[in-house]
Amino acid sequence: MLKIQPLRDEDWPTVWAMLEPVFRAGETYPCDPAITEEEARLYWAETTEASYVARDAEGRAVGAFYIRPDQPGLGDHVCNCGYVVAESARGRGLAVALCRRSQEIARERGYRAMKFNLVIATNEAAVRAWLKSGMRIIGTVPKAFRHARLGLVDAHIMYKEL
Amino acid sequence: MLKIQPLRDEDWPTVWAMLEPVFRAGETYPCDPAITEEEARLYWAETTEASYVARDAEGRAVGAFYIRPDQPGLGDHVCNCGYVVAESARGRGLAVALCRRSQEIARERGYRAMKFNLVIATNEAAVRAWLKSGMRIIGTVPKAFRHARLGLVDAHIMYKEL
Repeated sequence: MLKIQPLRDEDWPTVWAMLEPVFRAGETYPCDPAITEEEARLYWAETTEASYVARDAEGRAVGAFYIRPDQPGLGDHVCNCGYVVAESARGRGLAVALCRRSQEIARERGYRAMKFNLVIATNEAAVRAWLKSGMRIIGTVPKAFRHARLGLVDAHIMYKEL
Repeated sequence: MLKIQPLRDEDWPTVWAMLEPVFRAGETYPCDPAITEEEARLYWAETTEASYVARDAEGRAVGAFYIRPDQPGLGDHVCNCGYVVAESARGRGLAVALCRRSQEIARERGYRAMKFNLVIATNEAAVRAWLKSGMRIIGTVPKAFRHARLGLVDAHIMYKEL
């Protein structure tokens, strides 16, 4: 059982604890690996339309995601989302659960489709999770990402009509 | 002969005169057709990395474009650009000339590739101009744009390594 709640101010430290190692690693998110907590909060929680935290049956925060319009104005019926799963909660299919729930929420918020712009091709677990969530690859941007270990790698654009 | 210069404050009214009918029409750019001049300036000139105006041999402003990173941090070696050609200067291949010059400038600025995220599929003149400029379609987002006359239409993602 996963409980999804809008992110409150007091949830931020928990979410930052999930995001920081991911951002610092420079393997899946484009943010500068030296991003500050303040910049991360702006990126994840302040400039997004909505930000959520997911808790397990025991109330532990196990993941988080944001939803924002992918484009302004005449393109704002397509949303973009970002996800993070706590390190301690990986390997249980949580990414798929989060993605499916975010699709429901996006639909309720009036979005007609969901689009990811930079799914790092070497992040196979993510690609698999999003495919399992009904997203499909609609294009691949060659060498779109400077992977911390692997250098320039491709990134997929993924899409699902809601 | 096309002269490309960084946009100065005093150029803005001329550029806004080119942009306003395009934004109001709601057929090619996603901005809200009711966008204010101030919002447009923020979008085109303030939140971009660099913004340019193109003048013909007589010194008349005939077009403009901006360059910005398509993604932050580890994705900021790919740029995104937007172009406008003055209504009175259309039909002379200016879009291709602007795009090619923007590619040179982007290369000088250190970008490794150029990417367009929302080339409205019904905007055939633009698609043709970008193909002619060496960009290629790497994906198509279904129903990504609420076209003012045609309703939901597809948009292409275009890309070129620099």
